[in-house]
Amino acid sequence: MKILQIDLDQGEVKEEKLAAEFKTSGGRLLTLSFLLDLPGDLDPLSSEAPLIFATGPLAGSGVTCSHRLSAGGKSPLTGGIKESNSGGMVAYHLARLGYRALLIKGANQDGDMVIRVEPEKVHLERREKYRELGNYDLLEEIRKEYGADYSVISIGPAGENGLLSSGIAITDPLGLPNRFAARGGLGAVMGSKGVKAILISAKGKQRFEPQSKGEFQSAQKEFNRIVRENPRIEVLQKYGTASTVSMVNQLGALPTRNFSQGTFAGAEKIDGEHMYKLITQRGGGTPTESCMPGCIIQCSNVFPGPDGKRIVGPIEYETLGLLGSNLDIDCLDTIAHLNYLCNDLGLDTIEVGCSLGVATEAGLVSYGDGKAYGELIEEMGKNTVLGRVLGQGAFLAGQVLGVKRVPVAKRQGISAYDPRGVKGTGVTYATSPMGADHTAGLTVFAPVEHGKKDGQLELSRRMQLVRAAYDALGLCAFLLGATGPHPDKAVALINAAYGKEHGADYLEKLGAQVIAGELKFNEKAGFTPANDCLPEFFYKEKLPPYDLTFDLSREETGSLFEDLRKDS
Amino acid sequence: MKILQIDLDQGEVKEEKLAAEFKTSGGRLLTLSFLLDLPGDLDPLSSEAPLIFATGPLAGSGVTCSHRLSAGGKSPLTGGIKESNSGGMVAYHLARLGYRALLIKGANQDGDMVIRVEPEKVHLERREKYRELGNYDLLEEIRKEYGADYSVISIGPAGENGLLSSGIAITDPLGLPNRFAARGGLGAVMGSKGVKAILISAKGKQRFEPQSKGEFQSAQKEFNRIVRENPRIEVLQKYGTASTVSMVNQLGALPTRNFSQGTFAGAEKIDGEHMYKLITQRGGGTPTESCMPGCIIQCSNVFPGPDGKRIVGPIEYETLGLLGSNLDIDCLDTIAHLNYLCNDLGLDTIEVGCSLGVATEAGLVSYGDGKAYGELIEEMGKNTVLGRVLGQGAFLAGQVLGVKRVPVAKRQGISAYDPRGVKGTGVTYATSPMGADHTAGLTVFAPVEHGKKDGQLELSRRMQLVRAAYDALGLCAFLLGATGPHPDKAVALINAAYGKEHGADYLEKLGAQVIAGELKFNEKAGFTPANDCLPEFFYKEKLPPYDLTFDLSREETGSLFEDLRKDS
Repeated sequence: MKILQIDLDQGEVKEEKLAAEFKTSGGRLLTLSFLLDLPGDLDPLSSEAPLIFATGPLAGSGVTCSHRLSAGGKSPLTGGIKESNSGGMVAYHLARLGYRALLIKGANQDGDMVIRVEPEKVHLERREKYRELGNYDLLEEIRKEYGADYSVISIGPAGENGLLSSGIAITDPLGLPNRFAARGGLGAVMGSKGVKAILISAKGKQRFEPQSKGEFQSAQKEFNRIVRENPRIEVLQKYGTASTVSMVNQLGALPTRNFSQGTFAGAEKIDGEHMYKLITQRGGGTPTESCMPGCIIQCSNVFPGPDGKRIVGPIEYETLGLLGSNLDIDCLDTIAHLNYLCNDLGLDTIEVGCSLGVATEAGLVSYGDGKAYGELIEEMGKNTVLGRVLGQGAFLAGQVLGVKRVPVAKRQGISAYDPRGVKGTGVTYATSPMGADHTAGLTVFAPVEHGKKDGQLELSRRMQLVRAAYDALGLCAFLLGATGPHPDKAVALINAAYGKEHGADYLEKLGAQVIAGELKFNEKAGFTPANDCLPEFFYKEKLPPYDLTFDLSREETGSLFEDLRKDS
Repeated sequence: MKILQIDLDQGEVKEEKLAAEFKTSGGRLLTLSFLLDLPGDLDPLSSEAPLIFATGPLAGSGVTCSHRLSAGGKSPLTGGIKESNSGGMVAYHLARLGYRALLIKGANQDGDMVIRVEPEKVHLERREKYRELGNYDLLEEIRKEYGADYSVISIGPAGENGLLSSGIAITDPLGLPNRFAARGGLGAVMGSKGVKAILISAKGKQRFEPQSKGEFQSAQKEFNRIVRENPRIEVLQKYGTASTVSMVNQLGALPTRNFSQGTFAGAEKIDGEHMYKLITQRGGGTPTESCMPGCIIQCSNVFPGPDGKRIVGPIEYETLGLLGSNLDIDCLDTIAHLNYLCNDLGLDTIEVGCSLGVATEAGLVSYGDGKAYGELIEEMGKNTVLGRVLGQGAFLAGQVLGVKRVPVAKRQGISAYDPRGVKGTGVTYATSPMGADHTAGLTVFAPVEHGKKDGQLELSRRMQLVRAAYDALGLCAFLLGATGPHPDKAVALINAAYGKEHGADYLEKLGAQVIAGELKFNEKAGFTPANDCLPEFFYKEKLPPYDLTFDLSREETGSLFEDLRKDS
C-alpha cells in the first residue's frame, strides 16, 4: 500500500510506501501520525497544516462496513486534534488504487483547485466556475464535465469561506454528496488549501486481495453472521439512527430548546417510526439504503417530500435532535429542508443546530420558526457578518452574542445526547481529545442507568478506546453492538488479510495508541486536564423533567486518561 | 482608612477597616488582593466576580498626580487579571471619605442600579430611565437630578450590553465623563452587575491629613520641584500626549492601516503641534487642562470643532494612533468625533481602533472612510450583531471575520506602538499579565534604539516593575520621566504621611509584589509562559519602511518573569 502525497505549494504529486507499522491499521491512527510532529502553535488554516484522508486496512475488500474514510487535521474549531470519519465511496476507491492515505500539504492561493486521482495519474486542475457552488450543484457540474466514474470529496461555500462549522462531503453510492466528515471544521481546512473537490476513480482496479483467501472468506462469513444476527441491526435497517429519538426522549436527554429540557413534546413526530411511515407512504424515497459497497446494515435513508421528490438523505438522529427538538421543530419536512441546506452549503448539522440554539437564546430568532432558521443557514452560505457569526460555531456565536448557555466542550458543539441524561456520553464530550463528539464514545446503548453517575467514567473510557480502535481500522461504529464484544473476529479478518498474528487484544492496544497520541497532540497545542470538562450550566442547571445535573466532577473527568497521558 | 463593600445580591452596604498591610499602598495592588483567592475558572461577568475601585495612599492629598483611580477585576476580554486606572475626580473624593477602596459584589439582576455614596450614607437606587443612555446624556441627567456635588463612575450602552471593549468613565474636574478606565472590558463587568452609575460626594469632608505635616510639606515641595523642572513635562503641558505622534512616526512604529506600515503620510496632520495650532486658533477649547485636582502637569486638552464648540477632550496619543493612522484617517475633526462616540457609548478607543482595523482588512469598510467608521461605532452602541462582532474586541472580530492579522496580545488590542518598532513595549505587550497594554510598561521614552532587540527585555521588565509600583501608589505614570529616577522622593511623601520608614527600595518591592501576584492569578486562570508572545505576523511580516520584525523569541519573552513566577 502507498501514501499519495500532494504538495500544492510546489504543485507536486508523489507516492510513498506505507510504513510497515501501519500495515494493519490506518484511519484515525494514520491521520494522527502525520500531525504529531507539527509545532504546537500550528495555525490549522495555514498552508503548513496538512489535511489527510485515510482508509482502514480492510477498505476495498468485501467486508461489510469496512470502508469508512477518516479525514484528519488540526481542528480550527477546537484548536486540537481532529479526525472525522464518513461513509461513502471514497475509501473504497482509494483502497482499490492501492492508497491507504491521501495527504495534502501546502495551499493553492487562487482557490478552485480540483484534484483528480486516476489509476495512472493525478491531475491538479483549476475550475473557477466551481467557486461558491453548493455541493449538489457542484456534483452535477462534475458529472457533466468528468462523467460518473468518480467518487468525490468536496466542500461547499462554508468550507471555502473558512467557516468553523464546515464539513467535508463524500459521495455515496448514488454519487450524491450525502455523507459527511462533518465535525471540527475540516471543511475550512480543505478550503484554506484552495481545494474545492477531489475526484477519485478506481476504474479497472480490482478489489483488495487478502493474503490467505480461504481464511479471509471464512472469517468474513463469521463476521457477517454476527452482524446479521444482532437485533439492533434490524432496527437500524428499518428506522435508521432516527430510531434513537424516542429512546433518548424517554431518558430525558433529548436536547430541546437549547438544552433547557430533556424531553420534547414533538418527539413522536420526528422519531424513526414516523419517518418510516412517511417515507413508505409518500414513495420516492427509501427507509433502507447503504452508504458504502457491501454494507449489510444499510442504516441510511432517503427522505422524500409530500410530492415524493427527494428532499435529503439520510436524516440522522443527531440532525433530528439538533435541528429538530433543540430548535423546537417537530416537522420532518422542515428538518429535512434544513438538513439539505446544511449539506448543500457544506455545514455540520450538529454544530449549526447548537449555534442556532444559541442564536435563539440571544433573541435573533424564535424557537420553532423553521423558515427563519432556514434563512439563517442560507446566510451562512452568503458569508455575511451574521452568517459568519453563526457559521463559526456555537462557541464563537455565544461569545459574540453574550450568551452563557452554550453547549460545547473544547469549543465544539455537543451532539444530541444531553450530558446530564446520558452521563457516560457526557464524560466522552468532556474528555475526548476531539471535543464534544458522540462518535468518540457513545454510551447510550449500554445497559446502564444513564442518568446516574456510577460506572459512567469506566463506560465512557471503554467506549472511547474501542471506538478509537474501530476508527483506526476504518470500521463503521454501527458494527459495535454486534462485533464489539468479539474483537477476535475483526482481528481474524486482519490476520487473514495480511498474514499477521495479532492477538485478540490488538484492538485494545490500537485504541490506547490512538488516544494517547491524540492527548499528546492536544497537550502540545496547549490543552491540559483542566480542559476536560463541560460548560458551567450542565453542572448547575437541573434538566427537566428529571432534574438531572452533570455530577461527575472536573477532577474525575480530568483524570480519566491520566495513565495514557503519562504513557504518551 | 476603610473599604466600602457593597453586596448587590443582598442589597447590603458595609465598611471594613483597611488591612494594615495596605496602609501605604492601594490601587493596583489592592484591587488584586480581592481577586487572588477566587477560583481560576471564575466567569468575569458572573455575580461572583467582584469589581473593585481603589485609590493610592496619597489620594485626597495635595500631591500632584496622586489621585489615580484603579478599577480592577477579572477581564472578560483577556480572561486574566485586569487593572485599568484613570484620572478624574473619583479617587480624590473616595479618599476624602476615608475609603481606600470600593468593592462591589453580587449583581442587580434588573440593571439600572445607581449607587450614591455620601459622607453619611450609601444609597442603592434604581433609575430605569438611565438605561442605554450615552455617558454624556447620562451625566446631564445626573446633574439635573442630583446636582453637581458628585463625581461619577459610569458606563455607556457598551458596558450595559456586555461588550468586551467597553470601559468605565470617570468624571473630570468639569464634571464630564472624559476619563476612562478603558481597557480589558471592565465596563462589561460593571454592566454585568447591573450598575449604571456610581455617584460620590465628599461634601464637607476634608483633605487627607498627613501624620507629619511639616515633613510632608517639604517632601511635597521637593517632589513638585522635580516634576516642574523636567523638560518632558513642558511638552506634555503644551501638546499633551499627542506630542508622541511625530516621534513614533519617526521610529517607524506608528500603527498604520492595521499595523501594516510604521509611518503615516498624514502624521503631521494629527500630531500635537497641529492639534495645538487648531485648538488655539479656533478657540473654545484648551490645549492644557488638569484631569485631577492639584495636577501641575495638565497634559489634558479640550478639542473644539471649527465652530469653536467642544467636540471631545482629551484626545490622547493612543486614540490618534488607533482611530487615526491605523484607519488611515488624517483629520483631527474626524478623529475627535470618533473619540467622542467611543466616550459616549463607553468604548475603549484602543480596542475599537484595533477592531476597526481588522474589520477593514475583512473588507467591511475602506481605510480613511471616517463616516463609515463612525457608523460602525454607532452600531456597537445599538447592540446589533454587527455591532457586537466589532464591539467584542479585535480578537473575536478577527475570529469571526477570518482575519489572520489581528493585533492583540492575550486577546487584548495592541496600542499605538508597533511592537516591531518599539521593541521594549512589544516585550511589555507580550509579557504583561494585563495583555497588550502600553501603560503596563511603556519604553518609548527611554534613550535606547527602539528598533533593536538589545536590552529590550531588561528595559521592559524595569518599566513594568516601576509602573506597577506607581499604579499601586495611585500615582500618574506621567510623573515617571521626572520622579522615576528618584524613588526616594515618593517614599519620603509616604513615610511622612503614614509615619513609616520605608527605604528607597519600597517601590521596587511593591512592583515585584504586584506582578508576582498578577502572574499567580493568571496561572490559576490557565495562562502559561507560552501565552507570553505576540501574534505570528509581528514575527514574520517586515514592517515598512524599516523592515523591522519582532525578533525577541517566544522563549525570551516567556521567561522574562520566571523568577517572579517561582516566588508567587
